[in-house]
Amino acid sequence: MKELKTAIATLVLISAAASEAAVENLTGFADTERQLALESFLVDSLSATELDAWSKRLSAHAHHAGSPYGRENVRFIAELFRSWGYDVGIETFDILLPVPKERELILEGPDGYRATLMEDILEEDASSAGRSEVLPPYNAFSTDGDVQGELVFVNYGIPEDYEMLERYGIDVTGKIVIAKYGKSWRGIKPKLAAEHGAIGAIIYSDPADDGYTQGDVYPTGPFKNDSGVQRGSVMDMPLYPGDVLTPGKPAIKGTRRLRIADAPTITKIPVLPISYRDAEPLLRALGGEVVPGWSGALPITYHIGPGPARVRLKLVFDWQRITIENVIARLEGASYPDEWIIRGNHHDAWNHGASDPISGLVALLGEAKAVAMLAAEGKPPARTIIYAAWDAEEPGLIGSTEWVEKHRRELNSKAVTYLNTDGNGRGFVSIGGSHTLEGFFNEVLASVIDPQTKVSLAERRRAMLSVTGDEKQRKELDSRKDLRIAPLGSGSDYTPFLQHLGITSANFGFGGESAHGSYHTLYDTYEHYTRFRDPGFVYAVTLAELTGRTTLRLANARVLPFRFTGLADSLKLYLSELEMLAKEQRDEAKRINRLLEQDTYRLALDANKTLGAPKALPRVPFFNFAPLLNALVRVEDAATDLDKALDEGDFDNVDLAVLNKHLYQSERKLTSTDGLPGRDWYRHQIYAPGFYTGYGVKTLPRVRETIEAKLYDEVDHQIAVTAEVLEAFAMYLDETRALLP
Amino acid sequence: MKELKTAIATLVLISAAASEAAVENLTGFADTERQLALESFLVDSLSATELDAWSKRLSAHAHHAGSPYGRENVRFIAELFRSWGYDVGIETFDILLPVPKERELILEGPDGYRATLMEDILEEDASSAGRSEVLPPYNAFSTDGDVQGELVFVNYGIPEDYEMLERYGIDVTGKIVIAKYGKSWRGIKPKLAAEHGAIGAIIYSDPADDGYTQGDVYPTGPFKNDSGVQRGSVMDMPLYPGDVLTPGKPAIKGTRRLRIADAPTITKIPVLPISYRDAEPLLRALGGEVVPGWSGALPITYHIGPGPARVRLKLVFDWQRITIENVIARLEGASYPDEWIIRGNHHDAWNHGASDPISGLVALLGEAKAVAMLAAEGKPPARTIIYAAWDAEEPGLIGSTEWVEKHRRELNSKAVTYLNTDGNGRGFVSIGGSHTLEGFFNEVLASVIDPQTKVSLAERRRAMLSVTGDEKQRKELDSRKDLRIAPLGSGSDYTPFLQHLGITSANFGFGGESAHGSYHTLYDTYEHYTRFRDPGFVYAVTLAELTGRTTLRLANARVLPFRFTGLADSLKLYLSELEMLAKEQRDEAKRINRLLEQDTYRLALDANKTLGAPKALPRVPFFNFAPLLNALVRVEDAATDLDKALDEGDFDNVDLAVLNKHLYQSERKLTSTDGLPGRDWYRHQIYAPGFYTGYGVKTLPRVRETIEAKLYDEVDHQIAVTAEVLEAFAMYLDETRALLP
Repeated sequence: MKELKTAIATLVLISAAASEAAVENLTGFADTERQLALESFLVDSLSATELDAWSKRLSAHAHHAGSPYGRENVRFIAELFRSWGYDVGIETFDILLPVPKERELILEGPDGYRATLMEDILEEDASSAGRSEVLPPYNAFSTDGDVQGELVFVNYGIPEDYEMLERYGIDVTGKIVIAKYGKSWRGIKPKLAAEHGAIGAIIYSDPADDGYTQGDVYPTGPFKNDSGVQRGSVMDMPLYPGDVLTPGKPAIKGTRRLRIADAPTITKIPVLPISYRDAEPLLRALGGEVVPGWSGALPITYHIGPGPARVRLKLVFDWQRITIENVIARLEGASYPDEWIIRGNHHDAWNHGASDPISGLVALLGEAKAVAMLAAEGKPPARTIIYAAWDAEEPGLIGSTEWVEKHRRELNSKAVTYLNTDGNGRGFVSIGGSHTLEGFFNEVLASVIDPQTKVSLAERRRAMLSVTGDEKQRKELDSRKDLRIAPLGSGSDYTPFLQHLGITSANFGFGGESAHGSYHTLYDTYEHYTRFRDPGFVYAVTLAELTGRTTLRLANARVLPFRFTGLADSLKLYLSELEMLAKEQRDEAKRINRLLEQDTYRLALDANKTLGAPKALPRVPFFNFAPLLNALVRVEDAATDLDKALDEGDFDNVDLAVLNKHLYQSERKLTSTDGLPGRDWYRHQIYAPGFYTGYGVKTLPRVRETIEAKLYDEVDHQIAVTAEVLEAFAMYLDETRALLP
Repeated sequence: MKELKTAIATLVLISAAASEAAVENLTGFADTERQLALESFLVDSLSATELDAWSKRLSAHAHHAGSPYGRENVRFIAELFRSWGYDVGIETFDILLPVPKERELILEGPDGYRATLMEDILEEDASSAGRSEVLPPYNAFSTDGDVQGELVFVNYGIPEDYEMLERYGIDVTGKIVIAKYGKSWRGIKPKLAAEHGAIGAIIYSDPADDGYTQGDVYPTGPFKNDSGVQRGSVMDMPLYPGDVLTPGKPAIKGTRRLRIADAPTITKIPVLPISYRDAEPLLRALGGEVVPGWSGALPITYHIGPGPARVRLKLVFDWQRITIENVIARLEGASYPDEWIIRGNHHDAWNHGASDPISGLVALLGEAKAVAMLAAEGKPPARTIIYAAWDAEEPGLIGSTEWVEKHRRELNSKAVTYLNTDGNGRGFVSIGGSHTLEGFFNEVLASVIDPQTKVSLAERRRAMLSVTGDEKQRKELDSRKDLRIAPLGSGSDYTPFLQHLGITSANFGFGGESAHGSYHTLYDTYEHYTRFRDPGFVYAVTLAELTGRTTLRLANARVLPFRFTGLADSLKLYLSELEMLAKEQRDEAKRINRLLEQDTYRLALDANKTLGAPKALPRVPFFNFAPLLNALVRVEDAATDLDKALDEGDFDNVDLAVLNKHLYQSERKLTSTDGLPGRDWYRHQIYAPGFYTGYGVKTLPRVRETIEAKLYDEVDHQIAVTAEVLEAFAMYLDETRALLP
């Protein structure tokens, strides 16, 4: 105990020097110095060597959900937590998880080709040799199927690509589509293909996107070689994530399960991911037109078909029920045990997963160890901290979703924030999350020093945006005190916390200097990671510092560092985007329809080609944005008042427990139990993953997606519903303000 | 004679129907009906079959300048003109024209490669088999050289690419560069490479630009196959075109010639064009960094080097003096024999040249035949028409330039306009030229019917711009009566007329639906052309109609159809572009320099890569644009007054010969005998090819290029000089106005 105190005293000096240019007083703290000393201890405890050792251990074998090594990892992780003094549980769920039994893709005909459907074993990467234990390339939650048909190349397979195909007179009904990875989350591709009548879908990674065009391929460089395949889930997560058979309910005994045939988040058609080596003969065998801009970097002409290439795609899955295991490690808060800071990272991978998820997980472990050491030395957190290592994130955020669904009630009441990490790499910090913590996150970013440049993470990110940002971003850098936090869509385990329950959440990571093509391939290995993603685990340590400081500040703050004017400012931005979106659609519809009326396309287009005019667009009416504009003013006013009172910091006669609960419950008020149109699992009314983009966020989703879907009759209603949420939110801020003098 | 009259009478009816929607009265004509009848006769005389036959004949063998078949073509063309009643001369010049004796390109080392440097013979294209008669791939006016050195990939080899290389710390001094064709005229590439210290240059066509990425390659489709090579001149034409030994003087007996070693337009370093088949092993052998955005479509990672690839480039040329032959066919004007309408197209090709130049030449021949038939039937042109088939355009506009330099005095006095064509294809009309005829060209465009859509050429072009144009272009379509004529840079035989002598000029062609990769390859053959460029010679006939109507209207107009407000409007646009250019450079310099001062690049860039910060930029002062703005107002006022008087058409007491001469001499007033800074051959002060872009036009070039070159101290002076020219031009317009009531 004494030793620790000395250590802390020393560290204060170092920390003071390091963060001199940063904050003078940490928001929400009466004793900044003490908190900075705790954080300095944390920083000093972090060891790249230790993170490296854990990474090597955890990624030594394939460890997908349900795999033997996955179970070993769970025990290893649990044991670490236990050894540091955590109260550890392994919470299990019984979920549906298909794994492939048969995968067959054949180009038919005399110049036929049978796809190899597997990565090469590389001498330079010993991990790639363990063929028997690995999951071959597949898309989880593809349906079974054995289909034969003409092939059609659909570019990225996103809505605008189908609009273009329609202009070429091409209907994919009864056909098998081949789409590039990219431009949308992968699950959108089979979903759209099926909606357009296709009977099967193939997804491949074009070398233009993450192969040789981007840089040297593995093992020479980090990019995708011609055998690499991106695995990944195609579960319809924008409808709901988690176990496909238990929507909204935990996959535990007693929960009624859907029949597999009725599970709406399983794809309607079979879909398989392949390498560009396997894609080339298929694409080469296509005839038909060439759409300008659709070519990739294979040394061929990219025709769209349909045919003459015909393919057979056969997929048979073992629709197994497996038990997944979340490791939940709990450290009781000394002052507010019923206020929870939850910090998570998944532990399952597609195979070795050195980058995804182990690079994030080792940072979490490093952080958790330091936090436990502090507690062991008599400096426990004021609030309860829960570290979670989720299982089955890859197939569909299953471990976290089921856990959230199981602990719904308690989380609703107690969860202060959820802090997520996942794969990490060298480069620039990025934080996505709830804007009520935007100012707080900026404060943390100012406290952490970038290991390469020795300036704060905030300063380095500002520098990057100053150099590479567009004019709008650069302008904002000059005019806005805080870096704008990105809104969250989906793609990792924060989704059930944020979008289902309305728990203030954030996702942390580094990247931008570790571009690669190993994502979800057999080559996401320790070998690849340590050569190309983050040699020396330098940014793994920095990530641990970043999330560790965040966790400790949230756990220890006397008054939780929530603020609301930053949120109001982002809401204002999103609302202006919606108005612009409506205007652009209105102008575009007018333009296209006028061109159609005047027969301009017939005159402009090449009659020798099949490209035709676009379809007429529905007229875009003017919408009544007034309810949202008025609600926004209410939020702005309430936020300004509340932030001012919080900044004044006169808490002497305030019941802090009540105030803090009001603060951390604020995000709940941005949700609605009705959820979003057509997907009631998603309750957040500000942030959602796009129904037709997948991971990509849609802010003010009711309004935005209704406009995007051209359901113009419904827009005013969705504006009104969203405005009601904001009006209620403003009232809630007023109530919170009333707690203060 | 009688028969013709009947024919004309009949044709008037047809013509009236066809052009009903067009103009009611042709500008400058007292008797529109008579003129339209002449034009209808012309239209009826045109025969696709005949153009096809001429094309087949003229492109049957390679016929580059000085070649045996080229000489046969000259005789064939001359005989055609003679047979139609023209006064025909073959005007010769003795010029320097190097042809390759040795071409060798070797990738050195154990995995070496010797470039094949020749196109494949294709069964599907009989023309490609005549190996003995063809010119192999080379760049004319490359210097001799035998160089060895490390290779550096310089992307397109344009100024911004060298700036990027400098940021990577790469100096090309003593090295051999390899650059993609495109983004600039080819001659810029060895010029810039030499200025940066390179000892040799290789240029290749990347498949992304006109190979398999764009569509099927020859012979399956029109695009460049892996053996195709673009030949072409690299003479420093932005300095002066024409014979390299006789700048500004005709290459005839008695003209003093430079020594070859002193000729400034021969490259300083050897340069050779190659195919992508030959480029691939070279590029593959490069190491070093990968610059984002520099990759092409070869299935490799595009490293920039330098080295380890080392190449040897050996080029030996036969610096022969050859005689070139222009065919000049003259039809004396019945009323104004000393007012010349000159109509030209070159006859020399790189090899077979079915597209370039024969597709334009056969249109010229068709037009010339019809014009002669009219004359033979007693309807000779009022002004003299001169048809020219130029030799040696390909190596450097030599035939036309020498002829212009020889006939300088007479042309100065008599030339009304020069109307140029060159290669042609299927698609949309494009006219580039002098803006004093913009209204007139629009009138012609309204008279000619597009063969595919049956609307006027103007309407079809408007439709295309409405669909594919950017917002600015679309706005202009709505707000401007006339289609804006593109200003001319260089690239064909109009250059000596327009830019050296200030003769009002235009260039006509069709394209946009006949994309291809055969340009300057061995595959620019009759076979390729008739399959892909203009099957059925449909647009060759339309081109003949377009230029024929243009020629006949200019030849017969009572008052020449010059107008000046269109020019004033374009000058206003160019001036606003200059102000914007200065502003953008000022803002950019401020931005970059601020980032440098704040050390932002060090923070933003990846320290593991060699990409460094850009250099500090000189501060951009505010320039005194007032003289140009004031001069522009003067031009606008004078143009408005003059156009009004011309439109009123009260010519009863006007000496039309004097008025017409004033009108057609107007373009001369836009020139200055001082020429442009550093290149006095270029005298036009409004239009010039870019000194560092080549073909691409620079309007108001004194000012624009001085700003672009960052010679900020000189900008005000160049503004003043240009303003003086415009002031004088405005006075000239006032004088011309004074000739009218």
